[in-house]
Amino acid sequence: MSYLEKLRGAQETNESWLCVGLDPDPERLRVDVLKWDEPILPFNKAIIDATGDLVCAFKPNLGFYLQWGAAGTIALERTIAYIPEHIPVILDCKTGDIGHTQAAWASGLFDAWEVDAVTVNPYVGEEAILPMIGKRAEKAVYILARTSNPSATQFQGDLIQGHGLSAEVLRQSQKWDTAGHKGYVVGATYPQELAVARNLAPTANFLIPGIGAQGGNLEAAVRYGPDAIAGPVISASRSIIYASKSSDFAGAARDAAGRLRERINKMRDVS
Amino acid sequence: MSYLEKLRGAQETNESWLCVGLDPDPERLRVDVLKWDEPILPFNKAIIDATGDLVCAFKPNLGFYLQWGAAGTIALERTIAYIPEHIPVILDCKTGDIGHTQAAWASGLFDAWEVDAVTVNPYVGEEAILPMIGKRAEKAVYILARTSNPSATQFQGDLIQGHGLSAEVLRQSQKWDTAGHKGYVVGATYPQELAVARNLAPTANFLIPGIGAQGGNLEAAVRYGPDAIAGPVISASRSIIYASKSSDFAGAARDAAGRLRERINKMRDVS
Repeated sequence: MSYLEKLRGAQETNESWLCVGLDPDPERLRVDVLKWDEPILPFNKAIIDATGDLVCAFKPNLGFYLQWGAAGTIALERTIAYIPEHIPVILDCKTGDIGHTQAAWASGLFDAWEVDAVTVNPYVGEEAILPMIGKRAEKAVYILARTSNPSATQFQGDLIQGHGLSAEVLRQSQKWDTAGHKGYVVGATYPQELAVARNLAPTANFLIPGIGAQGGNLEAAVRYGPDAIAGPVISASRSIIYASKSSDFAGAARDAAGRLRERINKMRDVS
Repeated sequence: MSYLEKLRGAQETNESWLCVGLDPDPERLRVDVLKWDEPILPFNKAIIDATGDLVCAFKPNLGFYLQWGAAGTIALERTIAYIPEHIPVILDCKTGDIGHTQAAWASGLFDAWEVDAVTVNPYVGEEAILPMIGKRAEKAVYILARTSNPSATQFQGDLIQGHGLSAEVLRQSQKWDTAGHKGYVVGATYPQELAVARNLAPTANFLIPGIGAQGGNLEAAVRYGPDAIAGPVISASRSIIYASKSSDFAGAARDAAGRLRERINKMRDVS
């Protein structure tokens, strides 16, 4: 089964384009010491249990686990293993090294951890992508095209005018010959850019961050997000998993995820 | 002590600009299963013991450890802890996420693992750098400017003419206000580019890969590498740590490192 088929399956089963980011934060979890996978894994399990029927994907971000060193990656490994089989796992790591190093990343993330997709940084060119999905037909990468942060424009150029790095990444990378799917990260903070990105990459799946705490434009995500096979992956993290800091965090996360899913579905006219 | 002072100290003590990359490769190590930190940690310890008086830095690459999942990062964590205190550790991870995620990376790499420098990908702009070394005066990042791989020119522009992404990264990033040092990764595969990079960033330390297995230009690295405080970090990995695949690998690594250090020192006129 291709990545897009698996994604579409989860989107249909849960009637959802929502992706929940699993980003443990010691400031919000009040974790002083991480011993093996505690307390990150129990927290993540509670979030996964509470939202697993409301999402189309889960997206843990590697950096949030590495802040505890190896112990954090044990929690990450076990979190990934806990996510139900039919829900795609997108590992957000923005990896972008040269060929033989990317082959090692792919071996760890795709083969050992069995995630479905990873985010990739294209600075070094196609070498960041080909060793990962050149031959892995059932996997996908989301290539950074337009990021959702304030300093995105420093190097990414004027996407709306079709000039510069983001536009070039969208144009050139689609020509690279890969068995796996090439999707794109397109932030929702600049809604017009979503329209241009969709125009430049008509058949690519979009991972759209910046909806929750970052305040992105949901309407543009719904309008320009869908490709021919699947809907977009609209990602929120902090606004859901830290909806409450108290012991009711899982129920609060379920409520917040349900409300965001409903807002998306109303715009899609499927609710 | 600033990063550059620590680096200069190691360069003087060992009379060396050579950095050895610690990149475990299952094809070469014939590792079927990694259990905790075996056999990666014993291999690395033997390499560190054999070359510790010949190098100015060690540079493990995160991707090569993550290929074994969490078990690989345990080996990495213990490898970093084993490197002698006076030798800088550069963690090659090419991280480049947005602000709050980079803060988490920095917390893990700089504060928990206590590495001295990390490689950073500037695609998202200054947000990739400020949370890491904005306030960490004793730490450094090496920002990807020009990478050493064949597809580097797809998005990095014409550095020799001073156009495009690599040139812009060198120009703009120097203005960012950071307590820690901003160095640059400048591949040695295109020697003229080293001259241009030095011209654009006169006071920055350069991490120069592509010397060993990749066949870069050592003379250009020696000529344009030094900044006002320290010499460049000239990195080789496969040509040293896999100089022999047999049980004499540590002695062979020492010989290979010694020869490369000597070649560099002859060009520097210090041998």
